[in-house]
Amino acid sequence: MLAIAAARLGFRCHIFSPEAESPAFDVAAERTIADYADDTALVHFAKAVSVVTLEFENVPVSTLKVLERHVPVAPGPSALAIAQDRLSEKEFVASLGLETAPYRCVNDPADLERALSELGIPAILKTRRLGYDGKGQFKVNSASEVPTAWTALQGAPVILEGFVPFSREVSVIATRASSGAFTAFDVTENEHRNHILACSVVPARIGAPAAKAAMDAAHRIGEGLGYVGTYAVEFFVVGDGSDERMIVNEIAPRVHNSGHWTLDAAITCQFEQHIRAVAGWPLGNPMRRFDCEMLNLVGEDIGAWSELARQPSTKIHLYGKREMRPGRKMGHVTRPLLRQEQTRCRDF
Amino acid sequence: MLAIAAARLGFRCHIFSPEAESPAFDVAAERTIADYADDTALVHFAKAVSVVTLEFENVPVSTLKVLERHVPVAPGPSALAIAQDRLSEKEFVASLGLETAPYRCVNDPADLERALSELGIPAILKTRRLGYDGKGQFKVNSASEVPTAWTALQGAPVILEGFVPFSREVSVIATRASSGAFTAFDVTENEHRNHILACSVVPARIGAPAAKAAMDAAHRIGEGLGYVGTYAVEFFVVGDGSDERMIVNEIAPRVHNSGHWTLDAAITCQFEQHIRAVAGWPLGNPMRRFDCEMLNLVGEDIGAWSELARQPSTKIHLYGKREMRPGRKMGHVTRPLLRQEQTRCRDF
Repeated sequence: MLAIAAARLGFRCHIFSPEAESPAFDVAAERTIADYADDTALVHFAKAVSVVTLEFENVPVSTLKVLERHVPVAPGPSALAIAQDRLSEKEFVASLGLETAPYRCVNDPADLERALSELGIPAILKTRRLGYDGKGQFKVNSASEVPTAWTALQGAPVILEGFVPFSREVSVIATRASSGAFTAFDVTENEHRNHILACSVVPARIGAPAAKAAMDAAHRIGEGLGYVGTYAVEFFVVGDGSDERMIVNEIAPRVHNSGHWTLDAAITCQFEQHIRAVAGWPLGNPMRRFDCEMLNLVGEDIGAWSELARQPSTKIHLYGKREMRPGRKMGHVTRPLLRQEQTRCRDF
Repeated sequence: MLAIAAARLGFRCHIFSPEAESPAFDVAAERTIADYADDTALVHFAKAVSVVTLEFENVPVSTLKVLERHVPVAPGPSALAIAQDRLSEKEFVASLGLETAPYRCVNDPADLERALSELGIPAILKTRRLGYDGKGQFKVNSASEVPTAWTALQGAPVILEGFVPFSREVSVIATRASSGAFTAFDVTENEHRNHILACSVVPARIGAPAAKAAMDAAHRIGEGLGYVGTYAVEFFVVGDGSDERMIVNEIAPRVHNSGHWTLDAAITCQFEQHIRAVAGWPLGNPMRRFDCEMLNLVGEDIGAWSELARQPSTKIHLYGKREMRPGRKMGHVTRPLLRQEQTRCRDF
């Protein structure tokens, strides 16, 4: 989707990927298939392009550092380094005076027992690196589960997060230019099923002060990271009315699934906004055209595609993945929400 | 733009082009560079894909016939054959009972003198094949210009068209599925400068009966051609009020520049609609979201790109052409038209 947005602005894309089959190859002018540690390939790639960006937050920081010696890289390695590690991310967010879930760094089962007694039960054990869609997480419901939890995450560096009794999950998709210019899309409300985003609805059902707090937090995070490009900040909403509070859950240093609605319902989409930022263009207008919901087509949901393609107000996007697997994101749809009172995240 | 629309629906594109550098290569998975007469390459290509379509009406009919023996081709060779020749196109349109500019087939200077005396002066001499953007045309303003006109078109087969004193030019961008399902975008009003489309505005400033007549004419043309895909019908509007009349000027058997506004201002754009038709999908919703104007960036207009990229309500599209040439379409912008009374086709 980034390559498509770039093409529409007249840019030619060159994709670097360690995978022999990358979906981006199908919409890009050039490709390099090489390992992230292949310095020769990296230098060759860097010299062939005028700017490098990424769509995947787990590119090794060392890879970006090699590239950065030859070509601008946005977002840069220092922002990535923070966002790749849950511990440094939480420390960074806390350093800005923003609230996070309570957490403890945990190095062994004894640490875990101590942390559990401090944070209470239930709590979530999470690997510091490489987790997504619920992978690398274990919910601890009682002290007796400590050995199982420890084994499940196979000795990877972890943190324990206290459970936040949230009423909703929301996200802000924001973009920061190297000039410091900042835009954000309207706060989006997200519903997960089996730890995978099922549905996003915009606008989120939160009060105006809470929405403003989320925007401000996202802005400060972008500034603090010196971030260039589009990124997402996920929040837990706790309390309600005048007690409504935003707790930073996670930073995603990339375009984000909960921003896919912007393709159809915002003047400028998150992908174009990212390309504009990394290319040094002025940022576009993030204004939303209408209330909407985005539904992911996960695994066998894809079976509904022809019915969805037929609905006059539904915009369907299919990712062209050749194999359906349970839990795999195969596409998504965006639909206008005609009335606030409608049931949201309807099944198709 | 077709390849991008296809990618968004999950299709992989394979581009066949006789040109070593085609812009579509930059957004497609596979490419074949070969001549339109290279039957071996054509058969190889046909066997590699599940359906063939075209973005350019001057692919030889013989090429499509070779392909069609191995794979569905939409639109098909018979529709192309009619639209590639101004004479057969005019005869076809007239056979449907639709009005065209008066015309005469002209084979030599004596024919031309006779046709001029019948159709009156001024009149337009046009090559039957391969004309676009005013190329292959010569406006004859007096009988004394006959030798010059004849020489200018270098003995190519031509027709003479009587001059139509039109008040405006409009177009209908329509899509027909193989099932016969038909959709059309709202009638668009077009302004040319130096024979090149400068600006399209939608809705066109014509009465509802004239708009309906244009839609009906487009529908009958699509049916008559057995067309599958998106096509444009250009009309001259003559008379006004209850005397407003639509005269068919030209059929373009492809997506059309005057439909570029649909990328930003229609629920489904002309490119997606074309892909849906040729892939056998249900057609999308052609509804327009707002009144708008599309301005082409022709030649040195491209110098305004950074100013245009900064305007909050302007959507900019650049085509990534590496060289600017006078008269070359380098990109376009779409902007909402806030009030009917506004000056239209403002310069940037």
